[in-house]
Amino acid sequence: MAQTQQILYPQMVRRWDVFELSLTCPRDGNPFAEQWIRAVFNGEGESVNADGFYDGDGVYRVRYMPSFTGDYTAAVEASFLEQPVSIRFTVLPAGDGNHGPVHVRSAVHFAYVDGTPYHAIGTTCYVWTWQSDALVEQTLETLRHSAFTKIRFCVFPKHYAYNLGEPYSYPYAGTPMDSSVLTMDNFGQYDEHAGGNDWDFSRFNPAHFRRLEYCIAQLQALHIEADLILFHPYDRWGFSCMTPAEDARYLRYVLARVSAYRNVWWSLANEYDLMRHKTIADWEEIARVIGKHDPYGRLCSIHNCLQMYDYSRPWITHCSIQRTELHMTAEFTDRWRQRYQKPVVLDEIAYEGDLPYGWGNITGEEMLRRFWECAVRGGYPGHGETLLGYADILWWSHGGALYGESHKRFKLLADILKQTPGGGLRINPDQGWDEICAIPEDERYRGQYYLYYFSFMRPSSHAFSMAEGEQYSVTVWDTWTMTKEEKGVHQGKFSISLPARPYIAVQLKRVG
Amino acid sequence: MAQTQQILYPQMVRRWDVFELSLTCPRDGNPFAEQWIRAVFNGEGESVNADGFYDGDGVYRVRYMPSFTGDYTAAVEASFLEQPVSIRFTVLPAGDGNHGPVHVRSAVHFAYVDGTPYHAIGTTCYVWTWQSDALVEQTLETLRHSAFTKIRFCVFPKHYAYNLGEPYSYPYAGTPMDSSVLTMDNFGQYDEHAGGNDWDFSRFNPAHFRRLEYCIAQLQALHIEADLILFHPYDRWGFSCMTPAEDARYLRYVLARVSAYRNVWWSLANEYDLMRHKTIADWEEIARVIGKHDPYGRLCSIHNCLQMYDYSRPWITHCSIQRTELHMTAEFTDRWRQRYQKPVVLDEIAYEGDLPYGWGNITGEEMLRRFWECAVRGGYPGHGETLLGYADILWWSHGGALYGESHKRFKLLADILKQTPGGGLRINPDQGWDEICAIPEDERYRGQYYLYYFSFMRPSSHAFSMAEGEQYSVTVWDTWTMTKEEKGVHQGKFSISLPARPYIAVQLKRVG
Repeated sequence: MAQTQQILYPQMVRRWDVFELSLTCPRDGNPFAEQWIRAVFNGEGESVNADGFYDGDGVYRVRYMPSFTGDYTAAVEASFLEQPVSIRFTVLPAGDGNHGPVHVRSAVHFAYVDGTPYHAIGTTCYVWTWQSDALVEQTLETLRHSAFTKIRFCVFPKHYAYNLGEPYSYPYAGTPMDSSVLTMDNFGQYDEHAGGNDWDFSRFNPAHFRRLEYCIAQLQALHIEADLILFHPYDRWGFSCMTPAEDARYLRYVLARVSAYRNVWWSLANEYDLMRHKTIADWEEIARVIGKHDPYGRLCSIHNCLQMYDYSRPWITHCSIQRTELHMTAEFTDRWRQRYQKPVVLDEIAYEGDLPYGWGNITGEEMLRRFWECAVRGGYPGHGETLLGYADILWWSHGGALYGESHKRFKLLADILKQTPGGGLRINPDQGWDEICAIPEDERYRGQYYLYYFSFMRPSSHAFSMAEGEQYSVTVWDTWTMTKEEKGVHQGKFSISLPARPYIAVQLKRVG
Repeated sequence: MAQTQQILYPQMVRRWDVFELSLTCPRDGNPFAEQWIRAVFNGEGESVNADGFYDGDGVYRVRYMPSFTGDYTAAVEASFLEQPVSIRFTVLPAGDGNHGPVHVRSAVHFAYVDGTPYHAIGTTCYVWTWQSDALVEQTLETLRHSAFTKIRFCVFPKHYAYNLGEPYSYPYAGTPMDSSVLTMDNFGQYDEHAGGNDWDFSRFNPAHFRRLEYCIAQLQALHIEADLILFHPYDRWGFSCMTPAEDARYLRYVLARVSAYRNVWWSLANEYDLMRHKTIADWEEIARVIGKHDPYGRLCSIHNCLQMYDYSRPWITHCSIQRTELHMTAEFTDRWRQRYQKPVVLDEIAYEGDLPYGWGNITGEEMLRRFWECAVRGGYPGHGETLLGYADILWWSHGGALYGESHKRFKLLADILKQTPGGGLRINPDQGWDEICAIPEDERYRGQYYLYYFSFMRPSSHAFSMAEGEQYSVTVWDTWTMTKEEKGVHQGKFSISLPARPYIAVQLKRVG
């Protein structure tokens, strides 16, 4: 049945970029289900098995991210090839600004693989990729001018309040139910088994995934990590209640297509505990499939609604937490760090907005406060915006423009985090009982740097008691007005006047 | 040694007012220690033993609060009387607006003994009574125009930051240490054993207590409960480390003088756990002395710093709680109610101010928010003000005027609490997970009244789902701007538009 085909591929690729080979082959039957392709990549530093995928129109592709430089070979195998085909290519040094994928560092922090610190300043636009071209481009433009370094979004389209329209595309061949019958009053009446859907879960829609890849690549160019949500419960199409075999096929297709993008993270689910058709055993099986077919060990987690997943599971690289209490979340960051000894990412700590729901109606001030409370405890906060009154386009779901106040202040937080000696912060175990004080995680820098945060409190001064003989330069930041005041160099016990407003931070840097 | 003296007393007294008899007798030696006086009061409804006290200048007094009306007799005994002397007087009905002392009602609430609901809206002015006459009068004038129904203050003077001056008077004969040496830098260097004090703990200073009584009586006229703090750790005079015998003598003197005032509550201590010279056994002994010598069973509690007292102790009538976490307190009200099954009074949930300390630098908005969070959970909040910049006079300690913003909004809260059918609120066990909703404690009024509070959240609308067939009038309150909007009568499932600002409350009252 098979015959040797001409394999198309570039002679050179840069380190941590996507190498892609392709060939055109039989398109009879259902190539998604009946054919397969893969390649084994060999360089001096690694040997990697990469699954390929059928991209429609008779085209098969294998993608690969080289982690080293130098000469590489690949042996391409496929169900339609009589024997493996060998190819050769060269991996050049990484391009400017390409620091490789993000990994866990120092147990509870992140860094790019080249050692550059990475501070996750997240946002959430669940289905921005499934909006109109114009809106997708507007979202990218907004992100370009933002401080965000991570964005969460879904592979599947989303059915939820304020999200009842048709998505740009569907992941499967077939036809969806008629969405013209949906209103905000009845959206909750539809569940995953709603009638009217007619899908072939064995045939993917390559256009859907090409758009996903376009978005991932655009994010990569913006140095933004793509935290891909693989499953979610907001569904009227049946994607949340496929069989385990259908789930596995879906996962392998997604993994083959996008795991070579260095900025991809896996989020097994959003609000996994609302997905009543899946058990913990199902999630563990999904994790197993990912672990087996992601050759790069991308960052991987799973996000809760009311019940946190057991983040001590070995496949989970970091906590991906939603607040479970109405009033507090970010203040628990240190507790979760200590418990799980993994990076604590607070992917949902309520959204700046004015929705009738407690998860979507905090002020910009409160959103920013939660960002700081999380960050000074050495955690990584996430944002979202749910402001009504902008043509029914909500950033949290659709992307577009930002109308809130908190996001404008994240660059200052990011800039201050970048000043942390050694990269990561932790809470100072010696802080006073009414202080919130961060110090460098890395013990080699202890005593060099202190970052105080005063939250909703508004002291008119603060007394510091530093080690004798050391001098510290003091900078006072108003994290809301984004103004700073240099307070000079001090030593020993001293008091610094503060503006008696909320949201003040104070940096102490050892000098000399 | 003794001889019969002429006893002075009024022929008539009103119910729940103070009846006082006096007589002039020997003043040789130390009458505080060497003489005693007491009386047994008998009316149709009660028989009460009341300790008397020496008031200086040869005058002895016995005070008594009658709980019933009608003819009373008293048998007066004293160490200097050869035999008991009988007197008669009449108790008239209570004066207008006199509802008697406050008791616990429905386990977790309060009421005046005549059944009138009492909602504690507290404040703290630790040593307002020990300031100048002018300041005392200003404090009373401020209270007269306030919504406060309870004030906490100390019998002993206070030594603490911002409180280093000489008090108006001392409770004992003798001389204090030289306060001219004190500065804000060294105030913490003085402890209870600081030298320079010369007290006779067996001789009280009656003038000190007369001023206390004047203040209690003035508060009574304003319908404000006097939550008297009997011991506290802020001390340079040694009052916090007297012997148990000295403590007992002090307690009996205070009790004899003021327990007949119907608006007195006992607070064994402020921040008992900072009083390193006292053990739990000491506190239990103090409680025993109070229980034995307070014939009226006044409300009684003890206030913590970091470690709460065991509020399940039988002598404790209500919790008197200080926040133990920087970020939250009021939100735990329901937890403590359930745990202790007693009224939960949050006597310190941080103060509106701008001090360098976390306990004294929250905004007016945050103070008000904590008040509401506590109140809708059926608890009773307490206020304090620690704003610098007003001639070093801080309400929290000295009284005077109020310069903050929260206190102006407490009358609205008080007015709304008064509308609660049956008097007391509790959290609605059926509230949604992102709702805060209060209902009447009294089951007879269930379904008649709902009070929602939206805290720092700012919904633009809220969906209500009420029992079928019932109609509710809806009122939206902005608890900060103190404006209201009547939203008409609704039934079943309905949505109410809200102003998308924080600090909104919504009342639903069943009609028809």
